[in-house]
Amino acid sequence: MDYGDVIVVAPDGPRSAQSSAITVEKPLFINECPPIDSAKIYSTNGTPVDCIKLAMHAIIHRTPDIILSGINHGSNSGNSIIYSGTMGATMEGCMLGIPSIGFSLLDYSWEADFSVCDKIIRLIITKVLSESLPKNICLNVNIPAKNPPKGIRTVRASHGRWTEEYHKYTTPHGRPFYWLTGTYINDEPDAVDTDDYWLNKGYATIVPVRPDQSATDYIHQLEYTTDFH
Amino acid sequence: MDYGDVIVVAPDGPRSAQSSAITVEKPLFINECPPIDSAKIYSTNGTPVDCIKLAMHAIIHRTPDIILSGINHGSNSGNSIIYSGTMGATMEGCMLGIPSIGFSLLDYSWEADFSVCDKIIRLIITKVLSESLPKNICLNVNIPAKNPPKGIRTVRASHGRWTEEYHKYTTPHGRPFYWLTGTYINDEPDAVDTDDYWLNKGYATIVPVRPDQSATDYIHQLEYTTDFH
Repeated sequence: MDYGDVIVVAPDGPRSAQSSAITVEKPLFINECPPIDSAKIYSTNGTPVDCIKLAMHAIIHRTPDIILSGINHGSNSGNSIIYSGTMGATMEGCMLGIPSIGFSLLDYSWEADFSVCDKIIRLIITKVLSESLPKNICLNVNIPAKNPPKGIRTVRASHGRWTEEYHKYTTPHGRPFYWLTGTYINDEPDAVDTDDYWLNKGYATIVPVRPDQSATDYIHQLEYTTDFH
Repeated sequence: MDYGDVIVVAPDGPRSAQSSAITVEKPLFINECPPIDSAKIYSTNGTPVDCIKLAMHAIIHRTPDIILSGINHGSNSGNSIIYSGTMGATMEGCMLGIPSIGFSLLDYSWEADFSVCDKIIRLIITKVLSESLPKNICLNVNIPAKNPPKGIRTVRASHGRWTEEYHKYTTPHGRPFYWLTGTYINDEPDAVDTDDYWLNKGYATIVPVRPDQSATDYIHQLEYTTDFH
């Protein structure tokens, strides 16, 4: 392999929108799959984060130089990151002190051409392997669909929300049920420091991500601290 | 009810460690349960975040004044927040612009006495209803077990990690399998600005939480921005 020994540990099927979910109520199994080139390949019945935990504790028995998650089949821009299993696995690696990067391609079609990601991924891997990443920071990389990106922008996630989130159906027996759907509304389409702005212009985006969500800048503004006597 | 109309929307069974996972690959059902006092109660087959989304889109048809998530049966201090469905639901409410608070009791026993949470929860609800919360900020409240808390501290989440994460078994047919377990190691037990420090001293803790994980302070330090020609 161009960059070193490669070990793949992946869920054994789709795990869309698994966030940082982990499996606590059932046993996890590991399957060794046929290698591809010199890459060792394993599948598990767990979530993306379970794959990182199982890899570290039961498969590789050493600390990897880098963790790559994805390529996700669809966008993880804006606030999609919070639902993303690709980014859950990336943040898990980051919390273990390992340089970790999540990659997503903004193409939902079955025939998506993942080769448009090639140049960007090589460039970022090379840079992270040589310079590492700041402590407790990982990267969320989104890559526009179809054409090779025009460049890279380092930005923040745009703020948005989902609207009309469920399609309502009725079973043959008259019981209503719901299926998640909906449209993502970017609440700040003109903000030039956001990922969605540059993805729309054909650029790949890198959002530096901090798994720790403590809003330390608000600790002294919120006046809840008290002693009971 | 003391604070207004109460509507409960809860998963129909345990959903430990579901983080911000959402259900995209199966239909969701809503069951109306018998009311308790004047509270309307619904259960769903989804995750905690699905409950917030279903509540907003298919059940309550108006914007609530406040969202309360929990009381979680166990700690969500330190980096446990990233795996927590209780906090996933809280952050979902926050991203919708609704003041949202997650509560957790540090007692894993079946006979846990949740009444020790009473005073803290009333105090925080009253304050949030009167003063609201900063935009894009929600609260992660942890409450120590058994005795009423000595007071409240507003702090950040401590940094830690899980060690020896899996118990390994073998099926009767000789196949290995793994079950998540392990011990949480607080990497900074003496840090007086952290939740675990004060929980150990018998105080309830409030961590202000920002769902957006963009590390904006690193955007200009990471030199990836480039144009391809």
